[in-house]
Amino acid sequence: MKSYKSMSQEELSALYEELKKEYIDAKGKGLNLNMARGKPSKAQLDMSMDILDALSSKDNAITESGIDSRNYGDLTGIPEAKQLMADVMGTDPQNVIVFGNASLPIMYDTVARSYCFGVNGSTPWCKLDKVKWLCPVPGYDRHFAITEQFGIEMITIPMNSEGPDMELVKKYVEEDETIKGIWCVPKYSNPTGITFSDSVVRAFAALKPAAEDFRIFWDNAYAVHDLYEDKKDELIDILSECALNGNEDMVYEFCSTSKVSFAGAGIAAMATSEKNRKWVESTMTIQTIGYDKMNQLRHVRYFKDIDGLKVHMKKHADMLRPKFEAVLKCFESELGGLDIATWTEPKGGYFISFDAMEGCAKEIVAKCKEAGVTLTGAGATYPYKKDPKDSNIRIAPSFPTPEEMELASRVFVLCVKLVTVEHLLQNK
Amino acid sequence: MKSYKSMSQEELSALYEELKKEYIDAKGKGLNLNMARGKPSKAQLDMSMDILDALSSKDNAITESGIDSRNYGDLTGIPEAKQLMADVMGTDPQNVIVFGNASLPIMYDTVARSYCFGVNGSTPWCKLDKVKWLCPVPGYDRHFAITEQFGIEMITIPMNSEGPDMELVKKYVEEDETIKGIWCVPKYSNPTGITFSDSVVRAFAALKPAAEDFRIFWDNAYAVHDLYEDKKDELIDILSECALNGNEDMVYEFCSTSKVSFAGAGIAAMATSEKNRKWVESTMTIQTIGYDKMNQLRHVRYFKDIDGLKVHMKKHADMLRPKFEAVLKCFESELGGLDIATWTEPKGGYFISFDAMEGCAKEIVAKCKEAGVTLTGAGATYPYKKDPKDSNIRIAPSFPTPEEMELASRVFVLCVKLVTVEHLLQNK
Repeated sequence: MKSYKSMSQEELSALYEELKKEYIDAKGKGLNLNMARGKPSKAQLDMSMDILDALSSKDNAITESGIDSRNYGDLTGIPEAKQLMADVMGTDPQNVIVFGNASLPIMYDTVARSYCFGVNGSTPWCKLDKVKWLCPVPGYDRHFAITEQFGIEMITIPMNSEGPDMELVKKYVEEDETIKGIWCVPKYSNPTGITFSDSVVRAFAALKPAAEDFRIFWDNAYAVHDLYEDKKDELIDILSECALNGNEDMVYEFCSTSKVSFAGAGIAAMATSEKNRKWVESTMTIQTIGYDKMNQLRHVRYFKDIDGLKVHMKKHADMLRPKFEAVLKCFESELGGLDIATWTEPKGGYFISFDAMEGCAKEIVAKCKEAGVTLTGAGATYPYKKDPKDSNIRIAPSFPTPEEMELASRVFVLCVKLVTVEHLLQNK
Repeated sequence: MKSYKSMSQEELSALYEELKKEYIDAKGKGLNLNMARGKPSKAQLDMSMDILDALSSKDNAITESGIDSRNYGDLTGIPEAKQLMADVMGTDPQNVIVFGNASLPIMYDTVARSYCFGVNGSTPWCKLDKVKWLCPVPGYDRHFAITEQFGIEMITIPMNSEGPDMELVKKYVEEDETIKGIWCVPKYSNPTGITFSDSVVRAFAALKPAAEDFRIFWDNAYAVHDLYEDKKDELIDILSECALNGNEDMVYEFCSTSKVSFAGAGIAAMATSEKNRKWVESTMTIQTIGYDKMNQLRHVRYFKDIDGLKVHMKKHADMLRPKFEAVLKCFESELGGLDIATWTEPKGGYFISFDAMEGCAKEIVAKCKEAGVTLTGAGATYPYKKDPKDSNIRIAPSFPTPEEMELASRVFVLCVKLVTVEHLLQNK
């Protein structure tokens, strides 16, 4: 195919007319498709329904160590659930606290705790003049929303194929004591799908932060979410790497089963050092008498162990892979060679990151919406929802069926072409 | 029986020797009984096990209005659960937000939200020089722990048989704009077991707070927890009373099924005005994508409606009543007429409040502990765990069996006598 940039004014004008017609046709189809959020599909949720039978009236609700999961107490979770979540994260169960139905509230509460009470005895962030945060971009909108809510100034860090630009991270973290944290999705990153390389993880672990209360928020949301058996990304364990550098208190790691069992009714955990856990527990014990241990037990009884969980994740992969492939195939066949966009080809996770020509993303999303295809808002992958290049769009293929995903992709590439040609014509 | 205070030195000394012997005997029994916390017993939890079958792999997990309870979204809870919790509180479902597994985190988060972000646009409490709070005493230790954690200065308000001393409450709330809240357990209060009278509720509703961000934290934890069918306490609805006074934003009401279904795995809710709900939702939507809607659906499918829930609560009452009666019978027969203690006789809830002779509570609790009976720490019913009279002890009869409760009560009254006589001898 011919690169759009090499086309003459006349060629572009003719193409534009053609694309406009196609777009009017597409709108006429009355589609209503949503690839805005990384939501599991109905069929994927159906796969987990047997979990509900893993704790029935016929079962006893007592854990192996004799904890009555139905009653108050056991603030940090049941031992079996700690083991399972530790295995998901590749760490030791003694590092783990199991919380409630999702990991986002753990992250929010961790920021809130630091804001109100400080970090392991440091000055509460609400008493500081300035708190800053590093945000690798493109990144996860709900992360950015938390730091924005607490009035924390967000500084963007470019992502590359190995992870965040670590030279820049190092410079900020080691020179500026107002930098208190960084958001990371280290495996199958949201939205680029890349996994942090060993050297990036080691560079994180070797940081010498200017601030004693600097923490890495390591959101290992897609730890077991491989799409391909034969080409999985591997992420090395940040906790042990940090310990090797005498930096054991520098990381909070988070994970959940939101995209393993049920998106609204999973279990979630944090792994971190003993000192950090004690600090977390000191406010946790005021906030709650304990999280839902019956749901913890239900999950453990069903999955049995990490091997059981991985068998389950293969079924998810079989369901998700065709959706990713439908998108990527459409992108390749329709946009390949046009030199108007780039996109990632993740080996796991929930997203594809798409970079349109600068200045086109918002308009593409709007055009898609008009034709019945809802995307994540353009800019959402940047702090304050402001993508300076107006280029990045997050594609979330998990919710629609593969057939719907193909339809949606066709509308999407059409809108990409239409908006890009319009943009090129205006800027000729 | 003869009043201890009227006894001579000789009589007291003789009694003391006798009680000491009895106490040594009691210690010899090697008891291990716990009436420290308002925990449901195993048998009580067993009564709720069928809830687990109300949402199995054979059921569909879709609500009546078409919400997939397994997926993300629906921040404020499913409509069916709003209806059920509204009926528990005696309010309208449109006032209700349904949260996670317990109400304590809702209260904590509500204080935390006000501390970090203010109340409906007011100055965040963390930016104020002084925040004060009213604490009716004796009261609930976990309430006081929250306000203590946030550095809020707690002022005690005496409780009487109708509720808090409302003249004092009015004086503080209307004259001091640093007073930002008050803790209340309006029905079967923790620990006195009394229910706020209509005139107390109306006095609350008619308050004209000096601070626009003053809120009543109305912890309606025991709304449906009557012990007797024929002599229930009735609590009038604070939300509608407040509305009558143009004070609709002044109250947050909380409730949960922690002591209806499972103590660790129930559902919990807040009822409040539209303005307040919007403010709550503005941070909720950052903190979480939604609470566990499957557990909400499980509860609604099992209880069906408030009538079903009340039938269930009658079974609880049948189980709890003998425990309360065992305690009260023992108190009456062993302590009646001795003029050394008073106690409440609640018609519902989870606690009996016991007032020993001044200066004796700590020692009684210690002596009980030594004889294998664990009580709530003396002082726990006061802010900062400081009971100025060292007199109040909270008795929690729910966890032991009736037989254990009788044994525990015997040890308790023995310790009361022993410590009191010792005290009288020292002060002769």
